[in-house]
Amino acid sequence: MARTASLSGFPEWLPQERLVELHVLDTLRKTFELHGFSSIETRAVETVGQLLRKGEIDKEVYGLSRLQEDEDGGEGGKSDKADPNALALHFDLTVPFARYVVENAGYLAFPFRRYQIQKVWRGERPQEGRAREFTQADIDVVGDGELPFRYDVEIALVIAEALSALPIPDFRLRINNRKLAEGFYRGIGLTDTAGVLRSIDKLEKIGEAKVAELLRSELGATDEQAALALKLASIRTEDTSFVAQVRALGVSDELLEEGLSELEQVIEAAVQRAPGKVVADLSIARGLDYYTGTVVETVLVGHEQLGSICSGGRYDALASKGNRKFPGVGLSIGVTRLVSRILSQEFATASRSVPTAVLVALNNDDSWSAAQDVAAQLRGRGIATEVAAKAEKFGKQIKFADRRGIPFVWFTDDDGKHQVKDIRTGEQVDADPASWEPSPEDLHVRITTR
Amino acid sequence: MARTASLSGFPEWLPQERLVELHVLDTLRKTFELHGFSSIETRAVETVGQLLRKGEIDKEVYGLSRLQEDEDGGEGGKSDKADPNALALHFDLTVPFARYVVENAGYLAFPFRRYQIQKVWRGERPQEGRAREFTQADIDVVGDGELPFRYDVEIALVIAEALSALPIPDFRLRINNRKLAEGFYRGIGLTDTAGVLRSIDKLEKIGEAKVAELLRSELGATDEQAALALKLASIRTEDTSFVAQVRALGVSDELLEEGLSELEQVIEAAVQRAPGKVVADLSIARGLDYYTGTVVETVLVGHEQLGSICSGGRYDALASKGNRKFPGVGLSIGVTRLVSRILSQEFATASRSVPTAVLVALNNDDSWSAAQDVAAQLRGRGIATEVAAKAEKFGKQIKFADRRGIPFVWFTDDDGKHQVKDIRTGEQVDADPASWEPSPEDLHVRITTR
Repeated sequence: MARTASLSGFPEWLPQERLVELHVLDTLRKTFELHGFSSIETRAVETVGQLLRKGEIDKEVYGLSRLQEDEDGGEGGKSDKADPNALALHFDLTVPFARYVVENAGYLAFPFRRYQIQKVWRGERPQEGRAREFTQADIDVVGDGELPFRYDVEIALVIAEALSALPIPDFRLRINNRKLAEGFYRGIGLTDTAGVLRSIDKLEKIGEAKVAELLRSELGATDEQAALALKLASIRTEDTSFVAQVRALGVSDELLEEGLSELEQVIEAAVQRAPGKVVADLSIARGLDYYTGTVVETVLVGHEQLGSICSGGRYDALASKGNRKFPGVGLSIGVTRLVSRILSQEFATASRSVPTAVLVALNNDDSWSAAQDVAAQLRGRGIATEVAAKAEKFGKQIKFADRRGIPFVWFTDDDGKHQVKDIRTGEQVDADPASWEPSPEDLHVRITTR
Repeated sequence: MARTASLSGFPEWLPQERLVELHVLDTLRKTFELHGFSSIETRAVETVGQLLRKGEIDKEVYGLSRLQEDEDGGEGGKSDKADPNALALHFDLTVPFARYVVENAGYLAFPFRRYQIQKVWRGERPQEGRAREFTQADIDVVGDGELPFRYDVEIALVIAEALSALPIPDFRLRINNRKLAEGFYRGIGLTDTAGVLRSIDKLEKIGEAKVAELLRSELGATDEQAALALKLASIRTEDTSFVAQVRALGVSDELLEEGLSELEQVIEAAVQRAPGKVVADLSIARGLDYYTGTVVETVLVGHEQLGSICSGGRYDALASKGNRKFPGVGLSIGVTRLVSRILSQEFATASRSVPTAVLVALNNDDSWSAAQDVAAQLRGRGIATEVAAKAEKFGKQIKFADRRGIPFVWFTDDDGKHQVKDIRTGEQVDADPASWEPSPEDLHVRITTR
């Protein structure tokens, strides 16, 4: 991470850094598949109409246009907001997934569980932890018509398990419920619940006093209403005691009760199955309009300023086809944000920078084909092997391996006698290409964590 | 593949189709890593100046622009060719790779071997085998200053091995050499060798008569010169006998000799190490300017009209930094083109559509947590497992598994007795969550080929 991206906001990794990213991606994939999530990918491109359907973050969308005019004589397709059929890059994986579900509903078995690991693009001002091109890893479950609340619980647990398997510091899922918050606001007489949520969402940025001011000036809240809304947002418990704390505020509302019960179920299960990983945090609002119940943000303990590394929630109305509704719940891990931090803090490093375990040296220039035979035997047993391209002096060939980070060099003399040298220790032993194996630690690149 | 893409040219796969694609991607990755290639990814976005440096396929490039104007008051960044700093999506992985090598030269060990599997975009008219968004899988070796010719041989052999591991019909790498062709043209007095190559490249599309006409009218060739150029392009041999056939045309040129010797080396090694997979085909030209020696196209036998499924070659001058040159050789597999064909012809299918091997049924609604314990034990031994969300009648839970394609359902009665049912055969047996295993065929999704 000595380097900076040559295009601001578009990070690229060196090969040894990419190995850490691959480890993260492989670990996530494995965890998601063990929990029965199917892989899908959606195209990188959506129509502007589809992306802006929920009308939120249009500022950040990259439109596409052909550099040259069309052969048909049509314009080059200048992307603009006015043309809903213009193309643009997706800014998250939830909106494209909802579109995919609606389009393919006839071919999917519901509840449909999928994971999706892809790049997304946002034309935001780049800063630490915020790139313009970045990878997200999402899991979602979507039902046909209805989706039992239990999936909200399950999704949180799967994510806690997935994050626990990564080379990152301790983390906390901070969970709230939109019904709880909205019901509470309604119960105290604040009817523009979306407006209150937007103000509460600014708590960490601007502080309590300014949020109270916003609630009074923009939403017409009394001092007492503002104080109660802030009191609710200050509740944060590692167990289900938040329920009693909310009840103590003396507000009654049907939706509030529903939200309390849902959040209680999530926290109760988490206390048991993912102890210490989850908190009820009633300040969590999430900016996006499409969430309707559970909402989640996740912080790395000690790295809170990095922002949320995993967010999402329940959306009951994002996808529909006529009268048919597809409610869903999902969470999205910010892979690039995590990997950036892993690399900059050296939470994990690769044991070597190439997959290669063995370089087969050349005795003379005519031995290349025989060397390929040796390499093929080793590869046949899963040992990554390269063959030298030139019959340089052995010292030079060893240096070549050393420079590339390859631990073993294989020699075959003119009589066909094989030896292998561990160039780190200098130890050289007789070896049979049909049976020799490196130690398990040297077979593959290992990711070592600190 | 009953469905058509909802955006023409932007294919998306159903979950069971995606499993086939994942199998292809995993197989390629494994082969490439066994041969010591490191994974990298480059950003999807390059500057227009970088992309059009070789000034070829500008028609096909998608420019990017923010949908809204910049907050700075600057324009929304309308992409146009006049502004070399404007952003656009990459149309291949070779040009971005060359840029990456130059930028990171100080951090890479040369010869640098990398594989890169990513999406690319071209605004071409979509048709069978040609999408606007598609995945390429590239391997390249790049040297610092020089790169031994042996890598040209090696790259062809690695690709032949990788393709052989895929669920596709037999294939042929059709290999030529630019030096051979250019030297020959020069030797017969045609000095605009690039122009001749461009005409020869049209052979399959427009036929010999029209190419001869082009050579005469556009390049001032005599009847005899045109006939000789076509004669060269008609040579196609499965062994090194092309050398004698070229020599029989009686043309002498230094560059021609160099090209003959290089192509002979590739074909000689391929006859031995990848018998039947490679032909010397002197009609292969490759449109792109940056190739300087070996050029390769690949056809699926019996599916020639699909176009090349793997192309590339040697480029000695694509990447440079001042006086420092980074010659390279690489090949690029058209993954989306291959997967489309595999799916439409059912060359391979997934044994089930979900990763899940076991559904743990719920005895009653309170048993969810106990069911999760069973699931965790199974997952701990690598068995992908889901837990039912509702304690419906067992018949309904079995139907649920059947609908999702899950082969086994797990039952735990109130006394804690465990049984597992293979819902395909109906066989139900006692089982211990700490030790039960499905058969190896049922453990993971298998890709079966025909």
